Amino acid sequence: MITLYHCVSARSFRPLWMLEELGLPYELKVLPFPPRLEAQPYLEVNALGTIPAFFDGATRMTESAAICHYLAARHSPGALNVETGEPEFGAYLNFLHFGEATLTFPQTLVLRYARFEPAERRQPQVAEDYARWFLSRLRTLEPLLAQQEFLCAGRFTAADVSVGYALMLAADIGLKERFKPAVLAYWQRLQAREGYQRALAAQQRAAAEQGVPPHSVAFATGPF
Amino acid sequence: MITLYHCVSARSFRPLWMLEELGLPYELKVLPFPPRLEAQPYLEVNALGTIPAFFDGATRMTESAAICHYLAARHSPGALNVETGEPEFGAYLNFLHFGEATLTFPQTLVLRYARFEPAERRQPQVAEDYARWFLSRLRTLEPLLAQQEFLCAGRFTAADVSVGYALMLAADIGLKERFKPAVLAYWQRLQAREGYQRALAAQQRAAAEQGVPPHSVAFATGPF
Repeated sequence: MITLYHCVSARSFRPLWMLEELGLPYELKVLPFPPRLEAQPYLEVNALGTIPAFFDGATRMTESAAICHYLAARHSPGALNVETGEPEFGAYLNFLHFGEATLTFPQTLVLRYARFEPAERRQPQVAEDYARWFLSRLRTLEPLLAQQEFLCAGRFTAADVSVGYALMLAADIGLKERFKPAVLAYWQRLQAREGYQRALAAQQRAAAEQGVPPHSVAFATGPF
Repeated sequence: MITLYHCVSARSFRPLWMLEELGLPYELKVLPFPPRLEAQPYLEVNALGTIPAFFDGATRMTESAAICHYLAARHSPGALNVETGEPEFGAYLNFLHFGEATLTFPQTLVLRYARFEPAERRQPQVAEDYARWFLSRLRTLEPLLAQQEFLCAGRFTAADVSVGYALMLAADIGLKERFKPAVLAYWQRLQAREGYQRALAAQQRAAAEQGVPPHSVAFATGPF
């Protein structure tokens, strides 16, 4: 019933991780990166050319953090989802968005202008501007994560998947050495989860079966 | 009970617009842009230095699209909010995120590297890369908006506020001439709403009362 289009360790890892946390059945289609250039028929699946593309019956979604919220709300009320009436509902929504809009988008600038663009279009200044931008935003989590195991509601939720993927990407692009201690310890806790481990294994297995290179999107070479 | 920190026509216009659509009481604090440089005591309110900052009792939020969702879910179930069991719940979540992560963040690159940075740090190539990036993503809304009045669920929702603000910013930075007809007509429908008009009036009134320049963030001059 559920189909997820994915590139190895790209944003679409968020819904993959959620699916494994929830134990739901799904079909995983792995594409080379960037799919709009390397797998052009995909543009008929998603005109944006971005991953993920997610299908569940008549539901069609392309925003990775939104898919995490959708899966939690439909399949895990009161557990991986935080309900409207809970005191930390606002914090939950905030971290779902923060993981992507504030912590992931700036890293795509680092990737684009430090690695993906051809040499004559690289912009080391822009890459460093947004590495610093990411790290300064990330530091605001330090006091919170020094005091609690997860981001909100006293339990692991879809918000941890949203922010956790931003840490996974940061580790892939070499920014982990600049994490502060509480964020680093949180990232280690997330990696130890069975759901996370199963998602890693699932993408490697599907990439091998479908003949797609198994390395992370962070190690893709241009064109972007 | 509700307090919103805001810069004129910045992302924090989203929650302001929602508050006016819902007719809720609130206190509006207007800051010059960028607040982390022009109003440094604000860093004690929000260590990120970004706007919005939103307070509702013990709830504290900083992501503008998340605040729209929060207000809709708590104050407008089944109207401005789309509920978990509705068929277009997934589309609703997707557009809430799409408005910010896909349609607004790229515009901040245009602003930063075409206007806010000092001359020697401007990057016209990056500004044009992300203007085109924004417009190509925006075009994917054209078939949908040629057929329906609002984005999802057959009614005006918080998702329209999320995407609507991206169109407001695009109009402010000179990209409106590149909108396609259905998106342009949608943007005109949104501007005609009483809630939108009241939000515009509220920010002008509060800026005047609080001695803050009344022009849009898009016309701020550096430093960024």
